[in-house]
Amino acid sequence: MADRVRVFEVGPRDGLQNEPRPISLEDKLWFVRALVRAGVKELELGAFVRADRVPKMADTPQIYRAITSGALDLGGARAWALVPNRRGLRSALRVGARNIAVFTAASEKFTRRNIGMTISESLREFSRLLADARARGAEIHVRGYVSTAFGCPFEGKVSVGRVLKVVEKLAALGVEQVSIGDTIGVGTPNQVDAIFKPALELLGPERVAGHFHDTRGTALANALRALELGVRTLDSSAGGLGGCPFAPGATGNLATEDLVYLLDGLGLRSGIDLTALCRASLELSRRMERPLTSRYLQAFSASCD
Amino acid sequence: MADRVRVFEVGPRDGLQNEPRPISLEDKLWFVRALVRAGVKELELGAFVRADRVPKMADTPQIYRAITSGALDLGGARAWALVPNRRGLRSALRVGARNIAVFTAASEKFTRRNIGMTISESLREFSRLLADARARGAEIHVRGYVSTAFGCPFEGKVSVGRVLKVVEKLAALGVEQVSIGDTIGVGTPNQVDAIFKPALELLGPERVAGHFHDTRGTALANALRALELGVRTLDSSAGGLGGCPFAPGATGNLATEDLVYLLDGLGLRSGIDLTALCRASLELSRRMERPLTSRYLQAFSASCD
Repeated sequence: MADRVRVFEVGPRDGLQNEPRPISLEDKLWFVRALVRAGVKELELGAFVRADRVPKMADTPQIYRAITSGALDLGGARAWALVPNRRGLRSALRVGARNIAVFTAASEKFTRRNIGMTISESLREFSRLLADARARGAEIHVRGYVSTAFGCPFEGKVSVGRVLKVVEKLAALGVEQVSIGDTIGVGTPNQVDAIFKPALELLGPERVAGHFHDTRGTALANALRALELGVRTLDSSAGGLGGCPFAPGATGNLATEDLVYLLDGLGLRSGIDLTALCRASLELSRRMERPLTSRYLQAFSASCD
Repeated sequence: MADRVRVFEVGPRDGLQNEPRPISLEDKLWFVRALVRAGVKELELGAFVRADRVPKMADTPQIYRAITSGALDLGGARAWALVPNRRGLRSALRVGARNIAVFTAASEKFTRRNIGMTISESLREFSRLLADARARGAEIHVRGYVSTAFGCPFEGKVSVGRVLKVVEKLAALGVEQVSIGDTIGVGTPNQVDAIFKPALELLGPERVAGHFHDTRGTALANALRALELGVRTLDSSAGGLGGCPFAPGATGNLATEDLVYLLDGLGLRSGIDLTALCRASLELSRRMERPLTSRYLQAFSASCD
């Protein structure tokens, strides 16, 4: 096993967006700083979407202005933001965002409800978006998400062939990495084999990421299987922030603490200091006035009492 | 992979013993019945220990009397109980218990605090206990636990050599299965390799069980690795009942729901109906007036709302 693993932190965006209560810009900036100090190298921290539709992401331009002005120092870490369309791209470029993520899914119904397009339409939009960026001479890095790869809240089962087709098309557009997601947390390790083996063959380990949700407790087991297959980028959320809007009460993203504890135990290096990460998540939990769901964080917290 | 997995349910003993509040005998009997109806085949449901030391297990003889009288019908399931010494054995035999579990650990300090003996003393006691049983002509089945195999709350690291020595000695006493436990939930999959590979070589898959705690979120990942190595008996607790008395606030045993969901996904047969199991755990949760920690159960519960 190559011993470096890239932990792609999605807490400040995917996590906080799905939390019941909004948090202030000040708290977000504090949280991102604390994550960077803990050694996080890749952070998804906002989305250039319509503020009336997703009010929790309305402060994304301000986060980027804080980066540009030097008020938010990311060290060497990379900031990422979701960009759904060309309009979003223009907003992103305006405030200096250069690492953007586009998102579609493997099931039609979810894509329609989530972004109001068919899968094909979303891919066409991304193609235009990328052409736009090139036309403007903007050097951007693009990541693509494929949601509902393990199952859809509306359609149920999703075939592997379907997932791979979307993965292939995103890759053909030139995205540097495709993150394949178990959006509703129904996946089990044999599904990880079925999806990631061919995805790794298609794209190679540098261009594939796994995005697991812990809704049914299987996120870390799925992450383990993905690592065994050679996946070397895993998405996770500090404290286990976030849930799925379609499954109220359910836990959301794989918790970064649980993942880093696993990686440390496997001798895989993420560069993240687990204690510093726990302190950041606990302080955020205090500011949010709610406990977070990471098992490791709960044990850490109990040992601090 | 042989496709049958024996799920050894420890909720009614290991789980309930470590719950903050006691539950009534009536609720215990109801719970055991519900588990059996859900397809559970092996249940640890009590301990023949001093009632003044472990008041929550004081009703164990009554549970066995309910079995003997036919008031508690286990179908074909096997009832197990902990027996720490010859005195406990006499109590067990008196009420018709035939499947007993003896328990020691891989670290001296834990063994001393937990059962007031050294490891060697505990093994000598078990040897006398087994001789006693034979002398009485009692046909008993014996299971042995090795606690703190992945780490000790008092001594920290525990060497693999030490674990294997205790495993070997228990096996030499003639126990039919040795359950190797991550009592404080610190284990990660490479430790599972280090401990279970040689244990399987020594005893074969029939005689080895894995007992994982989810304190740091790794229980299911460890269970997956154990299954990959060929382990075919796993201990778990319905709903994730129980915690570790030394880590207040921390989650305890691997939840049976999470395990069965994993097994179903892997195409491994446990004979347990996941929906029936969830209903049993949810009803227990209602009677106990506290939420249980199983992730799968939480998702199941949310989908029922």
